[in-house]
Amino acid sequence: MPYTRMSQLFLRTLREDPADAEVPSHKWLVRAGYIRRAAPGIYTWLPLGLRVLAKVEAIIREEMDAIGGQEVHFPALLPREPYEVTNRWIEYGPNLFRLKDRKGVDMLLGPTHEEMFTLLVKDLYSSYKDLPLVLYQIQTKYRDEARPRAGILRGREFIMKDSYSFDIDEAGLQAAYDKHRVAYQHVMERLGLEYVIVRAMSGAMGGSRSEEFLALTPFGEDTFVRSPGGYAANVEAVSVSAPEPVDYSDIAAATAIPTPGAGTIEALVECVNQVAPRTDREWDGSDTLKNVVFMRVSPDGKKSPLVIGLPGDREVDEKRLEAALSPDEAVPFTDEDFVSYPGLVKGYIGPVALGAGQVLGLKGSAKVTYLTDPRVAVGTAWVSGANVADTHVVNLVFGRDFTSDGVIDVAEVREGDESPDGTGPLTLARGVEMGHIFQLGKKYAEALGLKVLDQNGKLVTVTMGSYGIGVTRAVAMVAEATCDEKGLAWPRNLAPFDVVIVVAGKEPALMEAAEKLAADLEVSGLEVVLDDRNVSPGVKFADSEMIGYPTSVVVGRGLKDGVVEVRDRAAGTSQTVAVDEAVAAILELAQA
Amino acid sequence: MPYTRMSQLFLRTLREDPADAEVPSHKWLVRAGYIRRAAPGIYTWLPLGLRVLAKVEAIIREEMDAIGGQEVHFPALLPREPYEVTNRWIEYGPNLFRLKDRKGVDMLLGPTHEEMFTLLVKDLYSSYKDLPLVLYQIQTKYRDEARPRAGILRGREFIMKDSYSFDIDEAGLQAAYDKHRVAYQHVMERLGLEYVIVRAMSGAMGGSRSEEFLALTPFGEDTFVRSPGGYAANVEAVSVSAPEPVDYSDIAAATAIPTPGAGTIEALVECVNQVAPRTDREWDGSDTLKNVVFMRVSPDGKKSPLVIGLPGDREVDEKRLEAALSPDEAVPFTDEDFVSYPGLVKGYIGPVALGAGQVLGLKGSAKVTYLTDPRVAVGTAWVSGANVADTHVVNLVFGRDFTSDGVIDVAEVREGDESPDGTGPLTLARGVEMGHIFQLGKKYAEALGLKVLDQNGKLVTVTMGSYGIGVTRAVAMVAEATCDEKGLAWPRNLAPFDVVIVVAGKEPALMEAAEKLAADLEVSGLEVVLDDRNVSPGVKFADSEMIGYPTSVVVGRGLKDGVVEVRDRAAGTSQTVAVDEAVAAILELAQA
Repeated sequence: MPYTRMSQLFLRTLREDPADAEVPSHKWLVRAGYIRRAAPGIYTWLPLGLRVLAKVEAIIREEMDAIGGQEVHFPALLPREPYEVTNRWIEYGPNLFRLKDRKGVDMLLGPTHEEMFTLLVKDLYSSYKDLPLVLYQIQTKYRDEARPRAGILRGREFIMKDSYSFDIDEAGLQAAYDKHRVAYQHVMERLGLEYVIVRAMSGAMGGSRSEEFLALTPFGEDTFVRSPGGYAANVEAVSVSAPEPVDYSDIAAATAIPTPGAGTIEALVECVNQVAPRTDREWDGSDTLKNVVFMRVSPDGKKSPLVIGLPGDREVDEKRLEAALSPDEAVPFTDEDFVSYPGLVKGYIGPVALGAGQVLGLKGSAKVTYLTDPRVAVGTAWVSGANVADTHVVNLVFGRDFTSDGVIDVAEVREGDESPDGTGPLTLARGVEMGHIFQLGKKYAEALGLKVLDQNGKLVTVTMGSYGIGVTRAVAMVAEATCDEKGLAWPRNLAPFDVVIVVAGKEPALMEAAEKLAADLEVSGLEVVLDDRNVSPGVKFADSEMIGYPTSVVVGRGLKDGVVEVRDRAAGTSQTVAVDEAVAAILELAQA
Repeated sequence: MPYTRMSQLFLRTLREDPADAEVPSHKWLVRAGYIRRAAPGIYTWLPLGLRVLAKVEAIIREEMDAIGGQEVHFPALLPREPYEVTNRWIEYGPNLFRLKDRKGVDMLLGPTHEEMFTLLVKDLYSSYKDLPLVLYQIQTKYRDEARPRAGILRGREFIMKDSYSFDIDEAGLQAAYDKHRVAYQHVMERLGLEYVIVRAMSGAMGGSRSEEFLALTPFGEDTFVRSPGGYAANVEAVSVSAPEPVDYSDIAAATAIPTPGAGTIEALVECVNQVAPRTDREWDGSDTLKNVVFMRVSPDGKKSPLVIGLPGDREVDEKRLEAALSPDEAVPFTDEDFVSYPGLVKGYIGPVALGAGQVLGLKGSAKVTYLTDPRVAVGTAWVSGANVADTHVVNLVFGRDFTSDGVIDVAEVREGDESPDGTGPLTLARGVEMGHIFQLGKKYAEALGLKVLDQNGKLVTVTMGSYGIGVTRAVAMVAEATCDEKGLAWPRNLAPFDVVIVVAGKEPALMEAAEKLAADLEVSGLEVVLDDRNVSPGVKFADSEMIGYPTSVVVGRGLKDGVVEVRDRAAGTSQTVAVDEAVAAILELAQA
């Protein structure tokens, strides 16, 4: 390939930040001419962006091939039926792009392809001898995100590598899972991303064991926790261990107290300290039992109220709640809803009237499901609402005075909470989900009838795994992790070009030398851009820094003394080298 | 890369033809495990198919890069607005996949991207100095074909390379067009396809000059014509030249004659030869003027009747009609429609009552548009319907007794018709459209406001070209052109693998020798499959022929004498070579 002339490259660097830029990578990828918005959450890849994307794809392809993955390619436009069978046509809710073809047939744009892979293998394979099998694709996916965000970090059309493993037994699945785990570690390392592997919920996928690969960034949407002992999980997957039952024989009987105006936990604590002070210490928020009411909505639209009881000093974590209820959703309980459920006294909801077997004075005769935090263990005593306006109850003991329909572990996880592995306090950090590996088990194979004959000629259901990694997202994350106040600063293995040669001056000798150098560098196997534009050196320097070419060579005033300047974008360093040693010096940098 | 073991390749060759296979390529691509149907007109690419597809893509990419094209990548999911501006949101009719996102916003799946490219260039470029520019993408396209056909030959989701040129003037556009023409010739040659470049209609694209690259095949959907002098056009684009006006002073007055039961042209000719015989010769079908009535439907659903008058020995060609009316459609005129238009007497429609200014006795007072074939020139005399049951008129002279609202050139083109270039009779053949190059001109740039400053600082509208080539279709066509009764027979530059090594026997020495040979061949740069499956040599031979590996090496009985057999799939030849000369012999074949 000949080198590229910047005067002919389809590129305009922009002076203004895009109005919707939320994170630096988004800003720089747009300003430096890598991507361009086509619609909300939907982007066009410009020549520079496409070059980076191709390098990321190549890395992922190599690592998948290395574990024996075989590449296939599914359509994005899919029939409804298989997703109907697994119920995901409904469960995906508004995240699924649905459409009808000219004959009125329901179709969808694939958000992920478990069903299709399962059916393909069912279609072609029939024996244990055909397994193990790992198939993958690098393919465009569609999800109608409620909040597309940060450019290509969370888009509605994006590229994913998704792979699927097919095994005859658990041991096979575990081996396929482990191989993917290693492959994903290699990918993260080759992308140069600082990452952590955390336990995850399997969400809409079903299945059992599941881990996420999170790239660390303060802009991350995912919060995760780590313990001194190495436990790591995203907040959705953290499980708080229930305390042992407590002896409650010494606790006085539950007593109603007047608490006018105590609509907040803070006001309640103040009030109860005045009206019914403790002798040992003051009441605090963690002594109160807050009962939060939601309307639970199932994918088919059915609604029922749900009350969650948790210590008053903690909030319900939205993401943990979403993960716990999936595929159902929780939406706010409206004033109208309170009118329909007069037994729920806003601000004074108490556990006694709720849950198992308790019929509230409702319109109709619906029961209200009541779920409690694991910390609400047998024998623990609480201050909570009395289901009567301006009244609370103290010394409400779980297992003595009230009970619930079950446990729900959705309270916020806090820095300093004890780690589930018992090795000390948790620390919190933020990251972006780059990869997700799942042990699906038999869910999809059972639903769609993927069975093979085993060694004894008996039909057995295949065990599957599902493994995804964000390809377009990886471009954003690498940009995010490496950019600075001047722009992008690509690692050498992912940069759109290795070197830019900046012609700094108008003398023909400069252009001549630069052209020769560009040609020599191309011959040495580097990808070279010659900035031959008729603009000032200052503009060229600023652009080369914003675009983030790893190496810049400045052919300028030094040339008459036989030298050029070689700059390293990421290190911020610069050296002067003799023109006839420039190729060697640049190769040394590039291969470092 | 290590060589591939056939025992582990995700592949099952099938014994049965797929039920919907219409052409050999479709049958073999499915049976040999290259593609698999996911929905009507929508296919999954299996490992073998994907390898061929990648090679086709690489050829197209190289040729586009060679003419200075710059690769970008647009989304497939697009906003409605730009297509609204150019009216294609409507004009595409039911061929467009339309959908709404979660907010109810109208979107579409891109059938082609003129609008988006125009807007992108408008977004970033502003000066004549930025031009010329050629951008391209290799991307998944969507068209909701009424009749998806022949596997990947005409799918609803398919891959296309589409490129767009942007120039300041006509000369620039012509240069970009010519460069694409050459690039497409290179592509067709590298694909090994026999092809012809024909004049084409520009259809829904708008614009002026347009040519198609047709790959020759008797299964082609496109009929084209050629003249001895080198004229070539698809039938839609053939224009019949109107004869010079004829002196009609000698022609007797028009006379109505009874023609009971003459509902067909054949019966009419027989009848008129009896009732009003000519003195010079017998009447034949070409003396009659057949008036065919259609209902014309515009993209917004408006309907109006259209009568087409043409010589009775020719039919209206459906594709020529479709092209001539686009974006309107012609649908059959129903019996109900005849009831609404009582002036149209079925079987006896005549020109006098039709067309310019003639008001038929209709319900309402609508006029019926009447268009005539170019052969209906001034002075020509015809036998035609009298608009009265069982009655025709002879000596109806165009320009004396009747006229029309205009010319429509949609009669079938026949083998032997005089060529428009005057070099002799036309011959007809069939082909598949592989590429299409268009001079769009300013249509899209004007609609979407793509202007740049010229050398005088004046805003001028950019001139565009649009160029498409079918990528997935190319895979089908190469398969079609090379397959035989045993299966596929890939050209060496497109085959999924270069060589298969067939282990023909169970002795460990055979497998050992085959493995060594496979490794040696891989080291020499070939892509190798080792057929190590535990099946009979006969099955392996049949599969290797069906899959179409260009070279097979049989490691079998000859091994004890130090030889293997090397077979050339396409040539059908075979040679025995010494084991230690096998690599050299195979390389020679592969590089021939």
